[in-house]
Amino acid sequence: MGEFDLIARYFTRPGRTEGGVVTHGIGDDCAVLTPTPGWQWLVSADMLVEGRHFLSTVAPRRLGHKALAVNLSDLAACGATPRAFFLSLAMPSANEDFLAGFSAGLFELADAHGIVLAGGDTTAGPLNINITVMGEAPPGTALLRSGARAGEDVWVSGTLGDARLALEVFRGSLSLPGEAFEAVRLAMELPQPRVALGQALRGIATAAIDVSDGLAGDLGHLLKRSNVGAELHLADLPRSSVLGAMPEAVQQLCLLTGGDDYELVFTAPADARARVLDAGRSTGTPVYRIGRIEEAAGLRVRDGHGRLLDQTLQSFDHFQS
Amino acid sequence: MGEFDLIARYFTRPGRTEGGVVTHGIGDDCAVLTPTPGWQWLVSADMLVEGRHFLSTVAPRRLGHKALAVNLSDLAACGATPRAFFLSLAMPSANEDFLAGFSAGLFELADAHGIVLAGGDTTAGPLNINITVMGEAPPGTALLRSGARAGEDVWVSGTLGDARLALEVFRGSLSLPGEAFEAVRLAMELPQPRVALGQALRGIATAAIDVSDGLAGDLGHLLKRSNVGAELHLADLPRSSVLGAMPEAVQQLCLLTGGDDYELVFTAPADARARVLDAGRSTGTPVYRIGRIEEAAGLRVRDGHGRLLDQTLQSFDHFQS
Repeated sequence: MGEFDLIARYFTRPGRTEGGVVTHGIGDDCAVLTPTPGWQWLVSADMLVEGRHFLSTVAPRRLGHKALAVNLSDLAACGATPRAFFLSLAMPSANEDFLAGFSAGLFELADAHGIVLAGGDTTAGPLNINITVMGEAPPGTALLRSGARAGEDVWVSGTLGDARLALEVFRGSLSLPGEAFEAVRLAMELPQPRVALGQALRGIATAAIDVSDGLAGDLGHLLKRSNVGAELHLADLPRSSVLGAMPEAVQQLCLLTGGDDYELVFTAPADARARVLDAGRSTGTPVYRIGRIEEAAGLRVRDGHGRLLDQTLQSFDHFQS
Repeated sequence: MGEFDLIARYFTRPGRTEGGVVTHGIGDDCAVLTPTPGWQWLVSADMLVEGRHFLSTVAPRRLGHKALAVNLSDLAACGATPRAFFLSLAMPSANEDFLAGFSAGLFELADAHGIVLAGGDTTAGPLNINITVMGEAPPGTALLRSGARAGEDVWVSGTLGDARLALEVFRGSLSLPGEAFEAVRLAMELPQPRVALGQALRGIATAAIDVSDGLAGDLGHLLKRSNVGAELHLADLPRSSVLGAMPEAVQQLCLLTGGDDYELVFTAPADARARVLDAGRSTGTPVYRIGRIEEAAGLRVRDGHGRLLDQTLQSFDHFQS
């Protein structure tokens, strides 16, 4: 099957790119997008490589989901309304089983969030998936990393650490009973980007970031850009019952440096607590208050006895791990 | 060197992402872009893989140029004004020589066309470069592939075939004297996207496409989308003196199926000839009239004796070559 047949069969959905912001999509040199008058565009790109961002054992359908999910998570972190995405895909060969599954998972999630595949590229090469997502927000409402101020609350959505726990089981360093493993494997392979929550937090949260490389590292980026620090209590970090049953050291590793969580960590003034909880409720997303922003730079995490953890909290770095 | 140091050293240029359409760039989950009021966005993505889109022998500086050039060429084909681009880069290791050269070539071309690197991704993996470009145009003025009508002229910019000629020398199937080889190698490694011409053709050209996979194939896409055909004369196709000195069969191959030309092929009504020539002159771009649009589907090319070429004119397909 040639490149153009492949695009036609798996990635073209006639009529679906008409209307809305996309007036011309796949089939021209560029997609033509009409902005919502007065709004700003929020754009992000994430590249996924086999063995680094996903295991070769992952089902193509789940991979299609995850490739878009990690990108939607960046839109969520900025409070963007998803509009269009561009997929570039390098594959060793045009494997139809792979393509059927991959595109099904991709479009399922795209439809759930009302985002349209507007263009991209396909080529032969080592498996590599790049997606560029575009969303919109009213001017000045995008959530950035730089707005946190001392005295504000630190919040996180959902639960942390399950994806890392699943990865450790895949690596053979831990083991779990079958049912527990399937539960954490879902967190790793089918992350649910917090797109609705991000939009609901526009005008409420002062800063936000998604947890892709681990809470400590990602919150660290937010603190640095905001020129502040934070104190968290380990006991307040939300975790699944599976992770909560693991030894304390494993919980700590997975909660703080896990990565692949795709939850939102964000800050908001103390007097906005009711509005934050409302945003969580109205979007069906659990939200938890996990700490406080402080003037002193750096991230301080206290254990159950109130003692500061002295470990160096590193986030995942693609060129050092 | 870690991922974040690498981005800071080679891909962050403080202050350059402020102002213009980009209000926040590298360092947040998304870039924030403010559209020109009332204009549309034109977006395209191209992925480059070693051994397929470039040879391992190419200098990193030229590769940085080419990776952006092929994307700017898509904006040119749509008549877009370049605004912002997103770079995703997978590399086996963080090689500083490579990064210094690559980023220098990339930014040199970006500055020449006033386009800003607004975000992206870096990761470890087999060498893979994906760029998503975003440009703008007043509503309804984007050049598409679908607007050609019978009776219109077919035009092309610059010269065709040199990049393919260089590739054949690299492959060892042809040889050229040193100076001639360097000239065609420039065409292959440092293509100049016709961005200014594309913008000048807004409101004049009725359809356009850039020649990336070969004139026959790319013009074929335009004809198909416009539901028309065309007749060209081989003798009218513009070529360099180096290609013009090669055997007739080589010229034909390189001109019609060469690929990697990044010239624009476009259509315009016969009464717009003076305006097309003006657009070429005002942007310093040679433009040549090479044929005519006809109602009958398909592409017909006549040789110097007026005979129709009977070869099947195939364009480059990444999964069949």
